Amino acid sequence: MVELTPNSSFSLTIRLQIPNRAGMLASVTGAIASVGGNLDQITLVERTRQTVTREITVDAASTEHAEKIVQAIKELSDIKLIDVYDRTFNLHRSGKITIESKIPLKSQGDLAMAYTPGVGRICMAIARDPEQVHTLTIKQNTVAIVTDGSAVLGLGNLGAAASLPVMEGKAMLFKEFAGIDAFPICLNTQDTDQIVETVKNIAPVFGGINLEDIAAPRCFEIEARLRQELDIPVFHDDQHGTAIVSLAALINALKLVKKSFEDVRIVINGAGAAGVAIARLLQKAGAKSIWMCDSKGIISTNRPDLTPEKREFAIESSGNLADAMKQADIFLGVSAPGVVSPEMVRSMAKDPIVMAMANPIPEIQPELIADDVAVMATGRSDYPNQINNVLAFPGVFRGALDCRASTITTTMYLEAANAIASLVKPSDLDREHIIPSVFDKRVASAVAGAVQAAARSEGIARR
Amino acid sequence: MVELTPNSSFSLTIRLQIPNRAGMLASVTGAIASVGGNLDQITLVERTRQTVTREITVDAASTEHAEKIVQAIKELSDIKLIDVYDRTFNLHRSGKITIESKIPLKSQGDLAMAYTPGVGRICMAIARDPEQVHTLTIKQNTVAIVTDGSAVLGLGNLGAAASLPVMEGKAMLFKEFAGIDAFPICLNTQDTDQIVETVKNIAPVFGGINLEDIAAPRCFEIEARLRQELDIPVFHDDQHGTAIVSLAALINALKLVKKSFEDVRIVINGAGAAGVAIARLLQKAGAKSIWMCDSKGIISTNRPDLTPEKREFAIESSGNLADAMKQADIFLGVSAPGVVSPEMVRSMAKDPIVMAMANPIPEIQPELIADDVAVMATGRSDYPNQINNVLAFPGVFRGALDCRASTITTTMYLEAANAIASLVKPSDLDREHIIPSVFDKRVASAVAGAVQAAARSEGIARR
Repeated sequence: MVELTPNSSFSLTIRLQIPNRAGMLASVTGAIASVGGNLDQITLVERTRQTVTREITVDAASTEHAEKIVQAIKELSDIKLIDVYDRTFNLHRSGKITIESKIPLKSQGDLAMAYTPGVGRICMAIARDPEQVHTLTIKQNTVAIVTDGSAVLGLGNLGAAASLPVMEGKAMLFKEFAGIDAFPICLNTQDTDQIVETVKNIAPVFGGINLEDIAAPRCFEIEARLRQELDIPVFHDDQHGTAIVSLAALINALKLVKKSFEDVRIVINGAGAAGVAIARLLQKAGAKSIWMCDSKGIISTNRPDLTPEKREFAIESSGNLADAMKQADIFLGVSAPGVVSPEMVRSMAKDPIVMAMANPIPEIQPELIADDVAVMATGRSDYPNQINNVLAFPGVFRGALDCRASTITTTMYLEAANAIASLVKPSDLDREHIIPSVFDKRVASAVAGAVQAAARSEGIARR
Repeated sequence: MVELTPNSSFSLTIRLQIPNRAGMLASVTGAIASVGGNLDQITLVERTRQTVTREITVDAASTEHAEKIVQAIKELSDIKLIDVYDRTFNLHRSGKITIESKIPLKSQGDLAMAYTPGVGRICMAIARDPEQVHTLTIKQNTVAIVTDGSAVLGLGNLGAAASLPVMEGKAMLFKEFAGIDAFPICLNTQDTDQIVETVKNIAPVFGGINLEDIAAPRCFEIEARLRQELDIPVFHDDQHGTAIVSLAALINALKLVKKSFEDVRIVINGAGAAGVAIARLLQKAGAKSIWMCDSKGIISTNRPDLTPEKREFAIESSGNLADAMKQADIFLGVSAPGVVSPEMVRSMAKDPIVMAMANPIPEIQPELIADDVAVMATGRSDYPNQINNVLAFPGVFRGALDCRASTITTTMYLEAANAIASLVKPSDLDREHIIPSVFDKRVASAVAGAVQAAARSEGIARR
């Protein structure tokens, strides 16, 4: 079966008291290694003549694996296990973001300017000239991260409260990668009308709305209605973020195999928010032949069960995913773990491109088809070519906010994808490097610049 | 006419180039003084053989006054005015609060714990045990500051956008005085049902709801319904914050004049959110005789125009404010500038207590009745005895969040008021010192402690 590699999402810090004599630490590290734990940091806490206290950080592959590691240590004689804590849980205690004052509030004078009576002059200025809200308040740099908790990561409908840690994480990414102040709005409703009304009602504080982890097909209507009714950018990251980064990767992958969007046949497996958005954007980029599949197989015009979004891509052919993949040039998966077999990949056209983006376990493990594909990408950080939305959304909003774009357009998506793709220099481009790293500092500003340029050329920049 | 004193809410920084010779700076400061400007800081920016560049900060009393000061400087010969900026506007550019990560996000390991895949484990933990949202997310320390912009400060119905600077200021106060993360929710609706629905929908992220600057009588229904329907504390600061601090001040003022709540007659002018809440809390504190007045005079049972809240306090007597004040022991104003005359104060009972809290211009200027009152308080920082909500709300929410109170009760208000009053030591208590300073660091924790104790004794603490 497919196994995850140890990583810091299952990371433990183990505090141990070890006899102060040669070879004792080695017995601990040996025990950890013997059950496949990945050693990270080892810190010396305290040393006496008799004992040494150390904290050892170990990455595991799963909760069960973590338990196995602890058990292996417990079985060592002479080693006293003092404490074990789960680093991911520890890091989440009290939440991950904070709201701070930009200016001190230490004197009567500070109060009189930042609060009453001075603030009244600012309120009056905005009341007289509503445009001033964009310069005199947080609106210009603040984005709402809105979810109904109906499609949290790949975990399903967990509801508002359980989605909050993801939205806090997203807020961290907005700040870290684009300097944007983002705040989580986790809604206690999954009714489309209520969601639309609520977001409209809270919109005055925000310069943009990032929709997140809202299930299809509801997400399409919510996004469309909010775009219609609000004068600030609305962006469903699960759709467009994924589409932008997928397109960026494909642009570079096609260069490697010397094919063009016009000529290739593309199979997209998964017709939810991401799949539909990818298909739409690839069409804009010039793709002529897209075969969409869902869990029932090819989305065929003769199927009676299609939503409007699926019908948009229905084709004459029918069959299962394996049928679709025969002689296809590109496979794009935004679906489920392990649904693609090596045989299916081997049935593809020459120099196949496989982007298996199901998270955390892809549609097919890269190791299984290493010699069969021209280019392989996944959503994971432990393989080459990670397709990660964080390459797109921070820069998209940075650009939109900076030029006060009234909306976000498909042209912006295309330009953002081109900007990301272009950061991989031709001399660096190879099958294991079709997309920049998420830590590449150039990405957000390149995307922001492309989005601004698109906004100006389309006449929707208001600054 | 009543004049405001210069203060930093109308504060300018003026950059000047002055000939480098003796007496030139004196001519500038002399000119500022001659038109009544208050000199603050003078900074040397640059000095050459010929000239000195300085920045001079000056407090004015109004926009017109600020212009007069600038004009006085312009009229000086040899002085070159380089730049003038309004410090309050400057401080508001880009807004006053920011959202930050608590933890770094610099490596793949950081991302894997704070975001995917690690965050998924936290989501699942909350989905399995919803109580965990209180330990693993920002909810435990986060308050929504909710307004519909219908009663912004004393400025009226300015709407959502124009109210945002006040709510940002409030968020700063929450952080500075109680370490609470508060976020502004300025609603694009003034419909009671919509407000209630919207707040319920966004509630999952928040540990408490602070309603702010919502007009009466709508505010009463909104607060009552939200208290009913949410399991987190809901607090309308304009009502209860004002009531708590007024009560605290009165407790100490009554000690000075050796009267008791049972024996005094209290006139409250202003029957909006604050007036009604003050009246209710004073009754709980033991007040037997409260005469409420609004702009039409005494709220009398024979008036046909009363809201339910006003009817609650209707009395047999009728007449205007002057009639009400004759032989009254206490005047509490939460109404409008200048509506009380010295004669009205002189008609009160022996040792009258006057709390004229209209902002920024009180019902009567303290100077006019300095010899006629036993105790005088206002809402202003430039007179003794400032009645400022910031003495109450940070501590109230700190206490409620710390013990996870399911609601906020009248007992908490009473205990909070007692806690504030008790911080003025008997030996320090005098007519110019009935209430602690807003910068007294003991206040928030004293209030928080009192609120927690009340929650525990009432059985509504959940931690």
